[in-house]
Amino acid sequence: MVIDQSTSVCHEDITVDLFANGIRPWAESIRRGTLSFEQSVRHCLQRIDEHNPLLDAFECVDRERALATAGALDKLLSNGTDFGLLMGLPMGVKDIIVVDGLPTRNGSNADTEDLNGVEGALMQRLRSAGTVTLGKTRTVEFALGSTGVNESRGTPWNPVDRTVHRIPGGSSSGSAVATSSGMVGMALGSDTGGSIRIPACFTGIVGFKSSVGRWPLDGIFSLSPTLDSAGPLCRRVDDAALLHTLVTGEEVGDRADVRGLRLGIVDPVFQEDLDSQVADDFEHACRLLQDNGALIVRLSFAPVQERTALFSTIVPAELISCLGPARFLDIRDRVDSVTAARASVGLDTSANAYVSAQKRRLELVRQARATFSRVDAWLSPTCPFVPMPVSDLSSPAHHQRALLASRNAQPGNLLDMCGLSLPMQRSALPTGLQLLMPLNQDATLLASGRAVERLLDRR
Amino acid sequence: MVIDQSTSVCHEDITVDLFANGIRPWAESIRRGTLSFEQSVRHCLQRIDEHNPLLDAFECVDRERALATAGALDKLLSNGTDFGLLMGLPMGVKDIIVVDGLPTRNGSNADTEDLNGVEGALMQRLRSAGTVTLGKTRTVEFALGSTGVNESRGTPWNPVDRTVHRIPGGSSSGSAVATSSGMVGMALGSDTGGSIRIPACFTGIVGFKSSVGRWPLDGIFSLSPTLDSAGPLCRRVDDAALLHTLVTGEEVGDRADVRGLRLGIVDPVFQEDLDSQVADDFEHACRLLQDNGALIVRLSFAPVQERTALFSTIVPAELISCLGPARFLDIRDRVDSVTAARASVGLDTSANAYVSAQKRRLELVRQARATFSRVDAWLSPTCPFVPMPVSDLSSPAHHQRALLASRNAQPGNLLDMCGLSLPMQRSALPTGLQLLMPLNQDATLLASGRAVERLLDRR
Repeated sequence: MVIDQSTSVCHEDITVDLFANGIRPWAESIRRGTLSFEQSVRHCLQRIDEHNPLLDAFECVDRERALATAGALDKLLSNGTDFGLLMGLPMGVKDIIVVDGLPTRNGSNADTEDLNGVEGALMQRLRSAGTVTLGKTRTVEFALGSTGVNESRGTPWNPVDRTVHRIPGGSSSGSAVATSSGMVGMALGSDTGGSIRIPACFTGIVGFKSSVGRWPLDGIFSLSPTLDSAGPLCRRVDDAALLHTLVTGEEVGDRADVRGLRLGIVDPVFQEDLDSQVADDFEHACRLLQDNGALIVRLSFAPVQERTALFSTIVPAELISCLGPARFLDIRDRVDSVTAARASVGLDTSANAYVSAQKRRLELVRQARATFSRVDAWLSPTCPFVPMPVSDLSSPAHHQRALLASRNAQPGNLLDMCGLSLPMQRSALPTGLQLLMPLNQDATLLASGRAVERLLDRR
Repeated sequence: MVIDQSTSVCHEDITVDLFANGIRPWAESIRRGTLSFEQSVRHCLQRIDEHNPLLDAFECVDRERALATAGALDKLLSNGTDFGLLMGLPMGVKDIIVVDGLPTRNGSNADTEDLNGVEGALMQRLRSAGTVTLGKTRTVEFALGSTGVNESRGTPWNPVDRTVHRIPGGSSSGSAVATSSGMVGMALGSDTGGSIRIPACFTGIVGFKSSVGRWPLDGIFSLSPTLDSAGPLCRRVDDAALLHTLVTGEEVGDRADVRGLRLGIVDPVFQEDLDSQVADDFEHACRLLQDNGALIVRLSFAPVQERTALFSTIVPAELISCLGPARFLDIRDRVDSVTAARASVGLDTSANAYVSAQKRRLELVRQARATFSRVDAWLSPTCPFVPMPVSDLSSPAHHQRALLASRNAQPGNLLDMCGLSLPMQRSALPTGLQLLMPLNQDATLLASGRAVERLLDRR
């Protein structure tokens, strides 16, 4: 819609959001000649100049190289070399992912860049497709945290409210903020316990967490080899599908509508203690889905309540193994206080507790997998509340509530699923609809997600 | 040979070893009508009566049920129901594997049967193929140990020397002794650090360790979910191939000879400190292979020296997780002293050390895998020495040497390979030739092993 009304100088009007309707319309306007890659990059850089001083989404911006690359890509395209729809796309990259020529901070004031290794296959595939990296985006320190708060490097401002500093969600906080405010066309994130889906939900955009093992993770800070996965923060499910196909070679089929889609609402936990707006939006989304032929099925999966115990036994120990106990003890005083406290648990975890948690997790993976004989996906709100003001976190009650940010997302990691969060809000503050499917059903999830998204558009 | 000369009453002559040439000739004599299943079982039971008082290979013998089952199978076969070559085969089952109707001791005086769960898919597939379980065979306690010594339940006697009690190798000690002495036609074992290949080597028979994940392990004591694998102790590589096809459905192709087979001799460690007989037999085998067109390639793989550190960080912690620390502390005084000391390490292993060892292991798996661009298999002696008298283990020097029993076999587990040990001795005491191939190349390994075995037969 925005693009269709755009003129050849739309890029100079930075109130226009080039990517509001996703990558495909933008890429079409490029091919129609109404916009160039360089204009797109310049447009994003202007938005960064305008909005980033408040939003603080970037760790660094790679201005000159992005402009030069975009210019070269324009020449290639005008001479008949088209790398496909992602060519020239201005992107943000979560600052736990190595990009050649840019520093990697892993959200920390301590130097941990040596742990990431060299640039990995994911960035190289993106580069081969002609994407343009505008900069590295802020992250919770070592990607361990779901509110988005980072005392060390700064907490991005959630663009949904320019007057109050609300939590952006984390850990892929900067990627969510940069994408939702149109400073980039899409951004890369990682998700170990909800770190893509939660900030996507809180900033009103789409977040896709791929199945563990499906996307290459070399060159990405290894918080948890067991649970780490990568994925995009983007405007439309279709954007995630384009990227998934580029990264994995797997095609995402078309699903006409939601008719016959079996969606499981899982008891207990997922529907408890919801903000009234979240409850209302979710109920409305469910009704819409049902009215259009989807089948809502009630499921019971009690072991979901073990998520806190399992997560806190597995992830801190794996983080400590990544950092090394000596280095962690050396830098602990300079690490964000919440992250440091969580990571410290890993110093005292026994191998017995760790191995037992891993065994229990695999048992639950099998049990959860069995529920998919009855449903195609688990359906829930992505987060139980709307993004709260950062200042609220200092009150104990709000702090307790904030711990629930990952409650609905983490089971997707622990139970070896792929997941998607779609905006479902009908009023000012964002809420998210989460779809979870079994390991390696990424393409099916994205195809279903596109159908659900089309339906939600119609509200 | 034995079978070809057999008369219809050969089963009553218990000096005849029905399975010396493997399962296929025995199965053919059954189909020729010169022998029945019941006669075969009776023959084995008579050998057990004669030899087991010295050899002590069995935890229990299921006499009546075996005879009744064999009789019923004879009726089925004579009425035209043939389940295939493994039908009616008298088998031993390592006593960490659940068999319905028989107790499971896991080599321990402590009751740990509840940890194994119900009878698993492996036993069920064997039962469906009509094999006859003669009994449960002795094992090192909790399958943790490579000499075969078990202070709790007894150490089987290596049949290669009836005058001196020599170590049988472990942990599948009873399965090796029962098979090599012809008390069963084949026996099941498990291999976490050489526990099939080492006793096969020390008793002069064939041992095959399948790739992790290839054979079902439910109903089998879980020493180490990371490294556990199952497989047969048998007389011929072809026997292992028959069983592998039954269990996995994977066919083993024919390889005419060893021409062009690329065999890697790996430095350092594998060829060091060999008994002179082992060195001679290995040199002779290599020369024979080379003279017949195999290519011997020298490889270097220094990280193999990390095996002790990795194994002792991963396996004891996983054993403690299986037993539970409380139960282990409760039974420790009643557990074999060497097993107890090894397992105790797992009480104090940190999650950090465990996770770091697992990461390092995966790195080495990748590095080892890369060597297979130059060779088809790693070739080495299975064990660096011939089986020593059990009484020698009380001397510190011999005890130190005994620790090397698993030195050449363990890398096959830690580096995610499948492995085979073939008899290569040319004089009284057994020596073994080990072939290792990458994960899931089991069928290729078995096909190559058959070709190597045919060549060694010709000496």
